[in-house]
Amino acid sequence: MTSRKTVDFEAIFHPKSVAIVGASNNRLKFAGLFVRALLDFGFAGEVYPVNPQEPEVAGLRAYPTVLDIPGSVGFGIITVPAAAVPRALEHCLAKGVKAAEILSAGFSECGEEGRKLENEVIRIARKGIPVIGPNCFGVYCPAGGLTLMPGPDFSTETGPVALISQSGGHAQEVAREAIAWGVRFSKVVSYGNACDLNEADYLEYLASDPETAVIAAYIEGPRDGRRFMELAKTATETKPVMVWKAGLTDEGAKAVNSHTGSLGGEESTWRAFFKQTGAIRIEDKDELIDAAMAFVRLPQSIGPRVAVVGGGGGMSVAAADACARVGLTVPPFPDAVTERLRMALPPVGNSIRNPVDVGVPVVAPKVFHQVLEAAASAPNIDVVIATQTIHLFMSAKMGSLAHAVASMADESREAVVTVAKEYGKPVVMVLPVGSTETESLDIEKARREFRDFYVEHGIPVYPSLERAARGVAHVVHYYQWRVDGRRASWRAREPSAWDGDASGA
Amino acid sequence: MTSRKTVDFEAIFHPKSVAIVGASNNRLKFAGLFVRALLDFGFAGEVYPVNPQEPEVAGLRAYPTVLDIPGSVGFGIITVPAAAVPRALEHCLAKGVKAAEILSAGFSECGEEGRKLENEVIRIARKGIPVIGPNCFGVYCPAGGLTLMPGPDFSTETGPVALISQSGGHAQEVAREAIAWGVRFSKVVSYGNACDLNEADYLEYLASDPETAVIAAYIEGPRDGRRFMELAKTATETKPVMVWKAGLTDEGAKAVNSHTGSLGGEESTWRAFFKQTGAIRIEDKDELIDAAMAFVRLPQSIGPRVAVVGGGGGMSVAAADACARVGLTVPPFPDAVTERLRMALPPVGNSIRNPVDVGVPVVAPKVFHQVLEAAASAPNIDVVIATQTIHLFMSAKMGSLAHAVASMADESREAVVTVAKEYGKPVVMVLPVGSTETESLDIEKARREFRDFYVEHGIPVYPSLERAARGVAHVVHYYQWRVDGRRASWRAREPSAWDGDASGA
Repeated sequence: MTSRKTVDFEAIFHPKSVAIVGASNNRLKFAGLFVRALLDFGFAGEVYPVNPQEPEVAGLRAYPTVLDIPGSVGFGIITVPAAAVPRALEHCLAKGVKAAEILSAGFSECGEEGRKLENEVIRIARKGIPVIGPNCFGVYCPAGGLTLMPGPDFSTETGPVALISQSGGHAQEVAREAIAWGVRFSKVVSYGNACDLNEADYLEYLASDPETAVIAAYIEGPRDGRRFMELAKTATETKPVMVWKAGLTDEGAKAVNSHTGSLGGEESTWRAFFKQTGAIRIEDKDELIDAAMAFVRLPQSIGPRVAVVGGGGGMSVAAADACARVGLTVPPFPDAVTERLRMALPPVGNSIRNPVDVGVPVVAPKVFHQVLEAAASAPNIDVVIATQTIHLFMSAKMGSLAHAVASMADESREAVVTVAKEYGKPVVMVLPVGSTETESLDIEKARREFRDFYVEHGIPVYPSLERAARGVAHVVHYYQWRVDGRRASWRAREPSAWDGDASGA
Repeated sequence: MTSRKTVDFEAIFHPKSVAIVGASNNRLKFAGLFVRALLDFGFAGEVYPVNPQEPEVAGLRAYPTVLDIPGSVGFGIITVPAAAVPRALEHCLAKGVKAAEILSAGFSECGEEGRKLENEVIRIARKGIPVIGPNCFGVYCPAGGLTLMPGPDFSTETGPVALISQSGGHAQEVAREAIAWGVRFSKVVSYGNACDLNEADYLEYLASDPETAVIAAYIEGPRDGRRFMELAKTATETKPVMVWKAGLTDEGAKAVNSHTGSLGGEESTWRAFFKQTGAIRIEDKDELIDAAMAFVRLPQSIGPRVAVVGGGGGMSVAAADACARVGLTVPPFPDAVTERLRMALPPVGNSIRNPVDVGVPVVAPKVFHQVLEAAASAPNIDVVIATQTIHLFMSAKMGSLAHAVASMADESREAVVTVAKEYGKPVVMVLPVGSTETESLDIEKARREFRDFYVEHGIPVYPSLERAARGVAHVVHYYQWRVDGRRASWRAREPSAWDGDASGA
């Protein structure tokens, strides 16, 4: 690869105009979905559909080729079949388009013929038009008005997290889900086969991008692993870099080859990568989202000492196990805190040790407030993790009590916000799904509204204690690593999880 | 403990009448919720509230003590404060009540005074009234009309899974969630402090219970570990026995002690337990539900060879990794199957290898059907796991296409049922949540309806590929163990996950 210092990423992320080559009126196809997605998302500049068969696409005048477009074009989006891509890219180059993304598949992931086409694309790109893709879902950049295929409904708010993903499906799913849980993105790049711009180019850009504070990557097979590693070493000194390296099992490695025509690299190489760079090792989609949420919402200086507040002794045990597994501790409270808890809670059916079990199904808001305050006041506690069981607030069987219970719910969530503010100590909320019956969709609605309320108030929310603990742990370990360089994850002690052959054979 | 051969479990699970001691009209208290729960659930026999302060509870005549009840009483449910429990139990004994559950807390989990009360309870129980609890949520037995506190809305259908749980919260949550995913229970027993009947007594009964084919247990600290182990050795020869042993980390062990006054036992002891008994090691609530679903829905003879069908190359890689991690394989298809897939799918943008990536966002039902058929037809495949992304069927942005897309959704799910039937090969469906925005609750509704449709047709459903693979793997490994005795879980190769001290220190 040539050095990418000269790539104009501004043209990619904030184009003034885009041409969509292959734009179509057929909404059952990607290209048809995509042109409408971009318009619905609210891209503010000019949109030029390019399609020689259609005079008009999505109500916009269409042009036979990029060269026929009257104005200048900042960014090219190419969706035509693979065989037609080189010509389309040549046109973009001739037109002076500053960069292009090639969404079309049918390149090196499809054998020899596809590889030849990809080489052709590389040859054209080198003449002066940087290329994202091919075989990708493109770019989501709210500040630039760009969305991933086919995400018309993604948030238009910008935020501190950047995601690069070799898989378009994962890019889209991670973004969609993380947005719902309150994470906002600076840029998401689905980069597919990475024939021209690759993971190292994006990392280099994002490491110095002022809009980006947290970097996440989904990688199948790196194109420039050495440079990526060198860049990661530097980037992790100022920004957390999370890497979900897929295909580290034998079966996964085979699938990687068939997906993006990549060779995934040895497990031992990646183990060394994480050890040497301080990048944060991620193992699946949920974990990526959970860690992103934690990095965005939690302060950098938190330690590993957690107070857990919830209902039910079984929950307490599960919470303690979950914390211990990711290297967090659940220390005993000082006597003064225990005394406050003793005053707040009835003498039986609960536990005033840490984890605190409030015991009853619908705890009075005042009691919940006092318990949270006591936990947050403990000098030996860095983070409070509290669970709320929404389905008990919402039970249709409450009958005449429904109104009173709803007001208790409101007061309880206000208590969380108040305590988080007053004590300046991070409070992490857990809202378990609790109830997935088809007829109890109202409970899920209430749960999502609770989540939205907390997210609006800057409080991170997770669907389970295990996931909350894991998210918190990533933040704790990363900043500990920044201080003492020892390790950036509890996984350093779990070699077996790296075992490529975990089969029972 | 005395031998429990003489316990009349029939009286516990199928009582003709129950007395609820401490029944109250205050629905913000457990006891108040519970009496209504039992009535709403539809207990068919006589219900006698016992409360000296109330002439009537929930519209039923209340009695000052159990001794004042005119008829005979089969089962006693005791919810009064701990100090009043021995007297209530004495009354039950005197009345000839055949067994009792003590829901009240405040016993050995609360220090010396509580321990004395518990000893008092044990003394009375030994005189001839077997006791469940104290500090528990009771019994759910649909065939007997009994429900757990406070589950008025649990399914009234009976099924093959039995669950015993030292935690009431976990018993309730596991039951609620598993029911929603199509699992039905023979019995669920929340047994709390297990002062009289303990985990070994329940296991002994369930091992020979004709209504129970699959046994699950959540255990914090066993009361009779040696007998439990001996019984498990025999039980696993005919029924899968899943054990979620909580508190195996240091932090978890401390929480166990505070919850049910138990000592959890050494990690090495439990490692030996799993190795010697062939019981299935479970690590959290989701896993218990996933495994139960798999044991109920999958045939016993399946092997580890999985075909994965889904949309998106990233999904394929994640699926292959997920399968490999739990000891499943994703073998290449024979040429004839590859050829069928080549005919069914367009030449680019997908993968006809295993995992199959159908490539496009909304695949035509006919194509989906052909792909499933091809995968199911492969002689080297034991199970087909297929994902469906409901949010693409449901996108409100589809506008005029909404109707056509809805009918595609219907045809697609019919295809799944048809293929599963025709090929007699298990098809496991994955329905990812996909979209948790508060405004897109219609998508979640559609997803749950899809789930219910599949469940009705006997097809197991999971919310993620990782969970599907783990569920399938438990069945595969357990029956392999029954054949060759080697190991009952892929976890036998993961000693580190047992590490009680996984902290970063």
